[in-house]
Amino acid sequence: MRLSKFFLPTMKENPSEAQIASHRLMLRAGMIRQSSAGIYSWLPMGFKVLKNIERIVREEQDAAGCQELLMPTIQPADLWRQSGRYEDYGKEMLRIEDRHGRDMLYGPTNEEQITEIFGGSVRSYRDLPKLLYHIQWKFRDEVRPRFGIMRGREFLMKDAYSFDLTYEDSRRAYNKMFVSYLRTYDRMGLKAIPMAADTGPIGGDLSHEFIILAETGESEVFCHGDYLDFDVPDAGIDYEGDMQSIVDKWTSLYAATDEKHDADAYAAAVPEDKRINTRGIEVGHIFHFGSKYSEAMNAEVQDSDGNSVPLQMGSYGVGVSRLVGAIIEASHDDDGIIWPESVAPFKVGLINLRAGDEATDAACEDFYAKLQAANVEVLYDDTDERAGGKFAKMDLIGLPWQVVVGPRGLKNGIVELKSRATGEREEVSPEAALARLIG
Amino acid sequence: MRLSKFFLPTMKENPSEAQIASHRLMLRAGMIRQSSAGIYSWLPMGFKVLKNIERIVREEQDAAGCQELLMPTIQPADLWRQSGRYEDYGKEMLRIEDRHGRDMLYGPTNEEQITEIFGGSVRSYRDLPKLLYHIQWKFRDEVRPRFGIMRGREFLMKDAYSFDLTYEDSRRAYNKMFVSYLRTYDRMGLKAIPMAADTGPIGGDLSHEFIILAETGESEVFCHGDYLDFDVPDAGIDYEGDMQSIVDKWTSLYAATDEKHDADAYAAAVPEDKRINTRGIEVGHIFHFGSKYSEAMNAEVQDSDGNSVPLQMGSYGVGVSRLVGAIIEASHDDDGIIWPESVAPFKVGLINLRAGDEATDAACEDFYAKLQAANVEVLYDDTDERAGGKFAKMDLIGLPWQVVVGPRGLKNGIVELKSRATGEREEVSPEAALARLIG
Repeated sequence: MRLSKFFLPTMKENPSEAQIASHRLMLRAGMIRQSSAGIYSWLPMGFKVLKNIERIVREEQDAAGCQELLMPTIQPADLWRQSGRYEDYGKEMLRIEDRHGRDMLYGPTNEEQITEIFGGSVRSYRDLPKLLYHIQWKFRDEVRPRFGIMRGREFLMKDAYSFDLTYEDSRRAYNKMFVSYLRTYDRMGLKAIPMAADTGPIGGDLSHEFIILAETGESEVFCHGDYLDFDVPDAGIDYEGDMQSIVDKWTSLYAATDEKHDADAYAAAVPEDKRINTRGIEVGHIFHFGSKYSEAMNAEVQDSDGNSVPLQMGSYGVGVSRLVGAIIEASHDDDGIIWPESVAPFKVGLINLRAGDEATDAACEDFYAKLQAANVEVLYDDTDERAGGKFAKMDLIGLPWQVVVGPRGLKNGIVELKSRATGEREEVSPEAALARLIG
Repeated sequence: MRLSKFFLPTMKENPSEAQIASHRLMLRAGMIRQSSAGIYSWLPMGFKVLKNIERIVREEQDAAGCQELLMPTIQPADLWRQSGRYEDYGKEMLRIEDRHGRDMLYGPTNEEQITEIFGGSVRSYRDLPKLLYHIQWKFRDEVRPRFGIMRGREFLMKDAYSFDLTYEDSRRAYNKMFVSYLRTYDRMGLKAIPMAADTGPIGGDLSHEFIILAETGESEVFCHGDYLDFDVPDAGIDYEGDMQSIVDKWTSLYAATDEKHDADAYAAAVPEDKRINTRGIEVGHIFHFGSKYSEAMNAEVQDSDGNSVPLQMGSYGVGVSRLVGAIIEASHDDDGIIWPESVAPFKVGLINLRAGDEATDAACEDFYAKLQAANVEVLYDDTDERAGGKFAKMDLIGLPWQVVVGPRGLKNGIVELKSRATGEREEVSPEAALARLIG
């Protein structure tokens, strides 16, 4: 993509309404634009990151044996009356009356809806187990939306649901999702730590939040430092194999948000030099709730003896849009965003230091064409802005690699290759730079 | 995917509520499930088709130089008060009051929102031209939703918007979209004919609907039969090149929906043996409306002389979810759906005629593994249902190719390869079948 053609309305000044780094940087880097309180449009740069995160979430759900479907955003209120949550949910639920006076709502989550779908379609234990998910916009009418897309009203969530015959099977599904979440966040360059959690309005007997550590996080967290060195299962993992030992390992040490924190237990369990007391951002939450919804909504199957039994269920959420902000909170500096390669909107920023100079233009065009031919995503700054402005903008938007091409370097047969994360600069031949970026 | 694991709740009987083929077949093939009137969940089989259509639309928008972004579903009413459409839209607009009593709505389209975004971000003619699009769920509170997802309330639409300095530039954008639409529908196996159209609530001076011919269509259409033989531009087309001659050709002959039909003009323009009088389904609609929204919303840029001028705009819609139904209306028979390969949920249905028989299982597993290794999407019916049920289900769901593997054929070294579209069956070796499906 040529910057001269790209719709990228960046800002030089810090917007006054933004209190945290991710909100400030997303506005400045032209990623989002506010539509109304807590509701944002995703401009092309932000949209590309959102899609990259969504793709990783999808790949890891599919790898764990989840099947994707899509439930609508607008649900009938009657579904929620069946589960008893229609009144419970309070004012955070966006309630809507349609033209015929029917009570509807913008779904904040989908336990009721998926229970209706699955319970209405499946009759036998032979159709189990199943893991189903969707990635859909949700709405939560926050009383005071803030922090940009981190605590917005309209947000994109992946929510998966498991259906099993027995409690033991259902725990296996929970474990699969637990492990797939470790992989999901790891692929985004995040160290997410599972922490025992309250089940809140979802309900159930077992729940973990996945928390990434960031000083600007929304809640205080306390955990054992060894978690930071734990290995995450690799891509070849067999989800039909032993998940329990991985879950056991990842829940063996102390880790708690302030809600669940117990100072005495912490002091007893964690040596002083291993104690991490910082703040965290929730990027996922998984629940095992057994038959809570299936009993309320008569979602039953016949077991092998012909008895009707309620489905055992769990639900598993990842905050897809929130992750865009969470990654920035975990990875930025004073100059701007530092994207991990896996989610970066472009891998390379190509800077032409003298647009209009024949030799520089030709070298840039050649470099640009070769990266594109190799399917490396590149943003080419072909504008006539001054060099300082180009450097500042490229640092702000945080692409992993910058390639700086100018007439002086070209005379000596070199371009500059800069890593945004480390700040390291190298003078190399264009061929060597290409080999590094394509390889 | 193994059918024994796939969430595919098919129905043997015709559902009584479905009046047209696509609605009936989508329910029977386990593609959708109704949530409330005009609102559907997309089950895994339906979701795969929806995603395939979305992918083609996206690829063709990108090829034409459109940039993707994403606007939210919920918009503030004030935006629509600025354009004057808030009152005009009537009861089809789903109006919502949030917890603070602010008037919101579920967007039925996004002219106002994109005008606010673009007008608020861009100052100079140097930032033009731009083509922006998004693929987002929309809501239209139909008084009497019917025909399944063909006339639903919550629906997925691609809407693009063009921004230009002059009328002539803006017409060039219109032509680009016109041509890219020809390609988009052609890739889905559809013959879509552009017909001059009323501009309705969008407004403007120029508009075309893209209509596919189907006897179950919603409106009567009249057109010159030569359109069916016109060539569609190929993938290598240069969108910076001459689009006008293509548009001229595709608008040179008579084509009109009943709204615009003129019986005398039709009789004069079309020889009797070339007259096609049938019904049609609208699958796209493009509009040129100049400064209608930019003037109302003060979306201006400075031209090269420093004068502020309102942006020239157009908007370009494709009914993504509606296309799923439209393709079925255009391509089915008494036994079920006949998917064009480009949008099919799986390319191949592999039928094991004797699940449990060692040699048949082994041959099927081998075939299945080889197709997967070659990235050919395959649904493997590994269930123990009887053969007749398997054949009927495979015809119903309409995958382009069926491979039937049974113990008798295997003894002679053959499997049966069947084309769903033609019904032709061939007995070939497994290797020959693989070569045909992979090649």
